[in-house]
Amino acid sequence: MAYTAGIVGAAGYAGVELVRILLAHPDFQVKVITSNADAGQPLASVYSAFSGVAEAAGLIFTTHDDPALAACDVAFLAVPHTAALAAVPGLLAAGVTVIDLSADYRLNDPAVYEHWYGVPHTSPELLADRAFGLPELFADDLERAADRHAAGAPALVACAGCFPTATSLAAAPAVRADWVAPHGPVVVDAISGVTGAGKTACARTHYCSADENVEAYNVCRHRHTPEIEQILGLLGRVVFTPHLAPLKRGLLSTVTLPLAPEAAGLTAEEAVAAYRAVYTGRPFVRVLDAGQTPKTSSVAGSNACQIGLAVNAEAGALIAIGAIDNLCKGAAGQAVQCANIVFGLDERRGLPLVALPV
Amino acid sequence: MAYTAGIVGAAGYAGVELVRILLAHPDFQVKVITSNADAGQPLASVYSAFSGVAEAAGLIFTTHDDPALAACDVAFLAVPHTAALAAVPGLLAAGVTVIDLSADYRLNDPAVYEHWYGVPHTSPELLADRAFGLPELFADDLERAADRHAAGAPALVACAGCFPTATSLAAAPAVRADWVAPHGPVVVDAISGVTGAGKTACARTHYCSADENVEAYNVCRHRHTPEIEQILGLLGRVVFTPHLAPLKRGLLSTVTLPLAPEAAGLTAEEAVAAYRAVYTGRPFVRVLDAGQTPKTSSVAGSNACQIGLAVNAEAGALIAIGAIDNLCKGAAGQAVQCANIVFGLDERRGLPLVALPV
Amino acid sequence: MAYTAGIVGAAGYAGVELVRILLAHPDFQVKVITSNADAGQPLASVYSAFSGVAEAAGLIFTTHDDPALAACDVAFLAVPHTAALAAVPGLLAAGVTVIDLSADYRLNDPAVYEHWYGVPHTSPELLADRAFGLPELFADDLERAADRHAAGAPALVACAGCFPTATSLAAAPAVRADWVAPHGPVVVDAISGVTGAGKTACARTHYCSADENVEAYNVCRHRHTPEIEQILGLLGRVVFTPHLAPLKRGLLSTVTLPLAPEAAGLTAEEAVAAYRAVYTGRPFVRVLDAGQTPKTSSVAGSNACQIGLAVNAEAGALIAIGAIDNLCKGAAGQAVQCANIVFGLDERRGLPLVALPV
Amino acid sequence: MAYTAGIVGAAGYAGVELVRILLAHPDFQVKVITSNADAGQPLASVYSAFSGVAEAAGLIFTTHDDPALAACDVAFLAVPHTAALAAVPGLLAAGVTVIDLSADYRLNDPAVYEHWYGVPHTSPELLADRAFGLPELFADDLERAADRHAAGAPALVACAGCFPTATSLAAAPAVRADWVAPHGPVVVDAISGVTGAGKTACARTHYCSADENVEAYNVCRHRHTPEIEQILGLLGRVVFTPHLAPLKRGLLSTVTLPLAPEAAGLTAEEAVAAYRAVYTGRPFVRVLDAGQTPKTSSVAGSNACQIGLAVNAEAGALIAIGAIDNLCKGAAGQAVQCANIVFGLDERRGLPLVALPV
Repeated sequence: MAYTAGIVGAAGYAGVELVRILLAHPDFQVKVITSNADAGQPLASVYSAFSGVAEAAGLIFTTHDDPALAACDVAFLAVPHTAALAAVPGLLAAGVTVIDLSADYRLNDPAVYEHWYGVPHTSPELLADRAFGLPELFADDLERAADRHAAGAPALVACAGCFPTATSLAAAPAVRADWVAPHGPVVVDAISGVTGAGKTACARTHYCSADENVEAYNVCRHRHTPEIEQILGLLGRVVFTPHLAPLKRGLLSTVTLPLAPEAAGLTAEEAVAAYRAVYTGRPFVRVLDAGQTPKTSSVAGSNACQIGLAVNAEAGALIAIGAIDNLCKGAAGQAVQCANIVFGLDERRGLPLVALPV
Repeated sequence: MAYTAGIVGAAGYAGVELVRILLAHPDFQVKVITSNADAGQPLASVYSAFSGVAEAAGLIFTTHDDPALAACDVAFLAVPHTAALAAVPGLLAAGVTVIDLSADYRLNDPAVYEHWYGVPHTSPELLADRAFGLPELFADDLERAADRHAAGAPALVACAGCFPTATSLAAAPAVRADWVAPHGPVVVDAISGVTGAGKTACARTHYCSADENVEAYNVCRHRHTPEIEQILGLLGRVVFTPHLAPLKRGLLSTVTLPLAPEAAGLTAEEAVAAYRAVYTGRPFVRVLDAGQTPKTSSVAGSNACQIGLAVNAEAGALIAIGAIDNLCKGAAGQAVQCANIVFGLDERRGLPLVALPV
Repeated sequence: MAYTAGIVGAAGYAGVELVRILLAHPDFQVKVITSNADAGQPLASVYSAFSGVAEAAGLIFTTHDDPALAACDVAFLAVPHTAALAAVPGLLAAGVTVIDLSADYRLNDPAVYEHWYGVPHTSPELLADRAFGLPELFADDLERAADRHAAGAPALVACAGCFPTATSLAAAPAVRADWVAPHGPVVVDAISGVTGAGKTACARTHYCSADENVEAYNVCRHRHTPEIEQILGLLGRVVFTPHLAPLKRGLLSTVTLPLAPEAAGLTAEEAVAAYRAVYTGRPFVRVLDAGQTPKTSSVAGSNACQIGLAVNAEAGALIAIGAIDNLCKGAAGQAVQCANIVFGLDERRGLPLVALPV
Repeated sequence: MAYTAGIVGAAGYAGVELVRILLAHPDFQVKVITSNADAGQPLASVYSAFSGVAEAAGLIFTTHDDPALAACDVAFLAVPHTAALAAVPGLLAAGVTVIDLSADYRLNDPAVYEHWYGVPHTSPELLADRAFGLPELFADDLERAADRHAAGAPALVACAGCFPTATSLAAAPAVRADWVAPHGPVVVDAISGVTGAGKTACARTHYCSADENVEAYNVCRHRHTPEIEQILGLLGRVVFTPHLAPLKRGLLSTVTLPLAPEAAGLTAEEAVAAYRAVYTGRPFVRVLDAGQTPKTSSVAGSNACQIGLAVNAEAGALIAIGAIDNLCKGAAGQAVQCANIVFGLDERRGLPLVALPV
């Protein structure tokens, strides 16, 4: 028997990726899709990929305040920050488990949230019990949420952002192993495809601006910076520079970590072995052999994360590179992975395991 | 219980798309993948999308003459023309049903084959009983093949080419309804993504040649011309000009058909209604409303074909446009669809129904 | 001594291409650039390619009604239709020669204009004396305009549209040579890059909509249809289907013309020879050898038009393919070429002759 | 009167960019173009952008040993490393000034060359007098070469590589101003378009591999590493990770430099002011305002370098970003710029100053 699901913000890029995944999921049934801008429109009139697809025939966008959400087993929130603050308390009160893809419940400290997002946090009391939605690094969080759900109480999962997901999966094992020097910048240069900029048509997302161009943006002020620092426990040390490149899906994060003196002799082969030990049993994280590098095209459309590792012994640095699909493992796929765990299902359930090979 | 499958030419683009689809198919189990150039290599070392994927772990390329093929229930041939001529008789003799993606058994008349391909046809006796693999237009053929298979005899399916598939699905209902004038050119201007040019690295497929460029190629001499003419019964009337555009997957065929005097008053709405009647019950063909046009991005990665129709009353012409993924509905997906039918399964079984919405 | 020039609508894609060309032109000096939306902004703040370029340092957008335009020797209008109707009479009255890139003065018959554009033509009296701006096919028009200008009177040039330019350069010599059958559709399937859709950010021009996609649009109702029919003298016979492909600049028009019985034996080599005779002395039109096909990447950024020709003897059709840069030969470059002729300069003056080779 | 020029390796991407630039250069006349693979072919048959271009009509590829090179005033070498070692001594002996785009004479220490390139340096005696071809940072070198040339002796210029050019223009002013901490990695994460991978068709440069993909390559072992360290005087400290992105031309280098305690209070505005002082009078280097970031599309096709600067005060780092066209400022354009200086011309002479704005 399937669980019923609602998707709030289903017309955005992460939202429609949720629709794609959940329509093929054997254990969740999409009951509600909302989009204030497209309310009243059938799904296929906004995304023609669903035109003529029997499974999508009945889906019509409603507004975010659709009361049918309260009757769902789970609500996925693919809305901008502050919109989740507005919706989450009510959904939880109605007994609906919430998988939140926004930034609203990611940061432990509401003051940090208010500093970076420029708005007050209106339900900080929910932060203590929310699970952080990055299953490979916060397994305990999700286990607690699953227990809570099994006990009949709704859970709240704050899914990690796209850049923090790729960056942290690539860097966390090194940090947790104490390989990283105690001082000095940790440099995160990441490249995202244009879906990362969202569905809103603007000068930056115009084809003729984005095509044949690479550029950095939001240098030193991207809001994923405090999230990366929080996950890795590297407060005040992360220099995060996101870049935009001309592709639709894909996110590559190249992290350069200064090695601690104790880790001076580390080889890439040793790093690979240690990482593989950390990620044993996690089917979506794929640590490549030393000498190999991840490609975004090898994960696009799937929930996989590829990790490549190299060591620059002379300069004393580990280079850890993570590749994901920003809409899937970086957003909708990871959300479904979290929901699978919370609902006691295999974490792979219903998720795309393999990218298009070409 | 699953049927065993072998894929000959599994390292090419159509071949690896077969691997992708069949690895997720509940009723076929991939036992053999061959590639003379990559023999001995694991699948993941050639296509890194499969790196770390449990289902693909055991797959290692062997050569095309791998005797294990003879023990399979079905062999998919994703090889160039003449290579199928060499392999098919032996496989059939071994009792293996063959789904051939090459051009070798498509043309009814071996003389036409020899004219366009410049080589003799070495097993013309197989042409009479082969099924033409375009299920929506040759349902009887595939039914006969299914009967044959059910009776314990191996079947041979010659799958339609990519351009003929999109072109014929768009044009055949009009031709069969006798809307087309008895004389004058029928113009097929089609656009393909670069996967259509194959995996071989050459000047034409170099990124820096194909990017930011559109061009026509093989004007008046593309080998899909006689196949289109045969399917549509328009011998000597098709002017087929294929074009290359900078995208990986996707094929759009714009067919302009001169209207017969009897069809002079045809409206787009009537055409849409008639097409929908023809394609009732065929889940992969999606006829759009009048005024809508198909997009290759709405079918890429899926086995769908979108069709759009318009009428130019003044000039007396029907414009019928078909969009497919050249590797999926135009090759591997259609092959699996044919296999499903021959093996008595639902034709949708194991096939991707929906493109990535973005 | 340089002539002074104003560019009305200089922030659009055709407008800024005019800026690029005229800044490097030895005989025109850009005095005024207008953009109602960007008035008050320096050029480089809207197009960062001009950042730090000395020649562009003083250029600041003003509004379309900038009185400084009346003091220019020439005004280039890169505005939407109806905006040119509003501006042209006043500029001519002020003695300013006008090179109009809009559609407002292209169609000979104001009734046809009103039918296709849905607005009344407010200065039809100017149509008789305007020159049609397609120099290789309307040399007499431009000669008359040059004479007029030499005599001290302002001239009005209505530049051809992008699709009509490529289509007509490819098809006109065949039509003028009476090779084309007197009845039956003439099929124009053309492919444009996304700059052709203009600078306005919208769903269609979003990178994530246009990338990895080809589609037809405005089927049977694109406003360049009557312009093509007028130039070629093929009223009611042109079936024009424009397509959008994922590249910035470039336009390829594939024209299939039914051959008249008298032209039944025409060969591609004969067609090439005849075309070369027609275009002798026209440096921008480059007729390729039989068997070769034009590429948009071979003309992008330049004012060139490449033409390829093939004959399908069996179906009785000539395939004539033209490739241009839609912003250059299809808009700004052709406008400057026209201005060169009107001002008595070599038509090549100041124009980019060669595309980036890669 | 023009100087005569030969281009060795003119069929490669940097070579044909030299052809493009020099054909439009008022002071150099291309007399010889060589390509062993294409010897005997006209230029236009290899690069169709030159088809029908009068200026290119006479150019036919000869082999690299064409004796006509010895009669040229200047030879540009766009060949792989070791090929320049083979050619340079002879050309200099014949009195020909050599502008070498290869890596053969870039590194001061032949032992470093031999370590990174794995071959012996066969003419180390030429290193002392060669000029390093990065005019904005090695003005003295080029002045000496100009003096030498003016005195009638041939000069040898070893042009900087593409990654070192963008990286060093972005980082050198900070290093020279002693803002950089004395220890710790300096991280260079750079992104190149696919022309950077060269013209050879291979799996990596196949459109279907490069499109919709970003990846790092040659991590910790790219041969531009010692060149960057030499230019910046940061031996053993540079962690250089190049990335490939799906565009033809363009190179963006993001350099993260740890700040010295003395530079702790540095602001982005101060950095911009200091950089502008360094680059005063250098027309190709354009330092953007604080808060702005460079775009490769704003320099592609031109010889410009855009630089953006930001400071992360908390982590103690300067982020300096440089954008160039890898084929122009990163190769052919810089070579012509060097030749201009050596021959006593304005450094801008004949060079494209502005990118296509869209």
